[in-house]
Amino acid sequence: MIIVPEKAIAGLLTRADAFDAVEKVFASMSKGSAYNFPVIREAIGHEDALYGFKGGFDKTGMALGLKAGGYWPNNLEKHGHINHQSTVFLFDPDTGMVKAMVGGNLLTALRTAAASSVSIKHLARKDAKVMGMVGAGHQATFQLRAALEQRPFEKVIGWNYHPEMLPNIEKVANEAGVPFEAVELEGLAEADVVISITSTFAPTIMAHHISPGTHIACMGTDTKGKQEVEAALLAQATVFTDEVAQSISIGEAQHAIAEGLIRQSDVNELGAVINGTHPGRTSDEEITLFDGTGVGLQDLAVAASIVDVAVEKGVATIVDF
Amino acid sequence: MIIVPEKAIAGLLTRADAFDAVEKVFASMSKGSAYNFPVIREAIGHEDALYGFKGGFDKTGMALGLKAGGYWPNNLEKHGHINHQSTVFLFDPDTGMVKAMVGGNLLTALRTAAASSVSIKHLARKDAKVMGMVGAGHQATFQLRAALEQRPFEKVIGWNYHPEMLPNIEKVANEAGVPFEAVELEGLAEADVVISITSTFAPTIMAHHISPGTHIACMGTDTKGKQEVEAALLAQATVFTDEVAQSISIGEAQHAIAEGLIRQSDVNELGAVINGTHPGRTSDEEITLFDGTGVGLQDLAVAASIVDVAVEKGVATIVDF
Repeated sequence: MIIVPEKAIAGLLTRADAFDAVEKVFASMSKGSAYNFPVIREAIGHEDALYGFKGGFDKTGMALGLKAGGYWPNNLEKHGHINHQSTVFLFDPDTGMVKAMVGGNLLTALRTAAASSVSIKHLARKDAKVMGMVGAGHQATFQLRAALEQRPFEKVIGWNYHPEMLPNIEKVANEAGVPFEAVELEGLAEADVVISITSTFAPTIMAHHISPGTHIACMGTDTKGKQEVEAALLAQATVFTDEVAQSISIGEAQHAIAEGLIRQSDVNELGAVINGTHPGRTSDEEITLFDGTGVGLQDLAVAASIVDVAVEKGVATIVDF
Repeated sequence: MIIVPEKAIAGLLTRADAFDAVEKVFASMSKGSAYNFPVIREAIGHEDALYGFKGGFDKTGMALGLKAGGYWPNNLEKHGHINHQSTVFLFDPDTGMVKAMVGGNLLTALRTAAASSVSIKHLARKDAKVMGMVGAGHQATFQLRAALEQRPFEKVIGWNYHPEMLPNIEKVANEAGVPFEAVELEGLAEADVVISITSTFAPTIMAHHISPGTHIACMGTDTKGKQEVEAALLAQATVFTDEVAQSISIGEAQHAIAEGLIRQSDVNELGAVINGTHPGRTSDEEITLFDGTGVGLQDLAVAASIVDVAVEKGVATIVDF
């Protein structure tokens, strides 16, 4: 039994590793050799916490297990811990015995950023120059840092409901040597790629904010009722997702489906593009939209990718269990 | 983060502790201060394994977490490990941070035995003399050992589809100083208490095998399609269970419900008897039937009960996580 503590993750998991693990597992999901289990998500009636499990099995990567944890909104104020808390547990698919426990907090941030990044690699125009950000919180910094590695962006533009948070992402842009500019939502028309990473129940981005040829990754909607973009935009775009079942029920596509603007068959797996069974973007005028809902297999894949390295580097604890 | 390995459980968890923990959590479930999450159970398509998660939250005992694991039918032959493999993970309900990991194999056997034992305490006649066993496998020995502590039984009678396994339970009876006798199913009429702990998809125990006044604990049915007793017996008995939702869907009551012989409102919580909000047995002629389906809260309660002791005794590993 190998234990990789949260504090060791920063020294183990590179953005490139997270990217590779997520790209591979999306491909496996689309081929049918990896699947996610139903998600358990419970409001436990204590500390206003949401708690649950996201599990799955990747037969290609031989990763079996779950991420357990959730959202404790009072953590920071009461205990000085971050509000999102999670831990990944890996099991041996050959025996059912527990194999590893891996801190899941930084890992979640990196695997979520990797997902939009994989979508940019496969769906954004090759000549994309302007990167647009909607959202400027903690997770937005991870998204932007990963995105900037996918194309030679010349400018980052950003909007946030609380403009005073924009320096968070300006700093990331500048660290990557890219100038930053705060814009109004109308200013997003200039962007070739947009990532939205907000937590709202009413759409922020309207269809007319997005220009032809743009790739937009919607990364904030993971619950019934949440919505980042106007449903009409999905009808204008070619829609991709990590997992179709989640996209149409708790993801960004839930609204366009409910309004009858698109059908389930209009929602495509990003993994199919990776595998070459879906052509992906077919013109420079096409709008592509990635609905990133977040799946347990991403967590398992990323966690599994660092266990051996953690042992080699001596930062894991090995316990006789 | 406290780690209590499988090999330490035998020295930590007494039958009395398991009994107390299970009795308390059944009471909490019935009061509404503890609840189980939906169960995840997946045939993963590898090694014919069934894998999943049983989680819950007990606000009274402040136990939050899950048991993860399953059934790997080739384990013993291929790897020398037992086929059922599970691990319990406990989380801090105040912060969502992982708190303890506890070996779940022996624990599962003991908590399952504790459940039928709690039902015997609260539902069997006080003057019960003859204990009947249907099933003689590994788990049957745990069930019998715990049951014999609940009444001054004078004889154990037993039946098993493979009679050559009966010595397993004969040994347990004799260790407790109680004589054992192998019987045909008709011979069960002599029993005052019956535990059935088999894994079958057709009923073994017919209504006419059970005498008035008997308490029967059906402990083997935890899946759609499984059945240990004739559905008609449930119509003749007062039916109790650990969790009504499981009883009527994957437990013994599923068949009587499907055949319209009983209604959901005929299935009572054992916890209500413990709490005194249901009278339990009301006559010496009444047949009481406990449908033990097994819930995650049992695992959490029992695991939580030994974590501190494990630390005190120095058999736990404490890892900075």
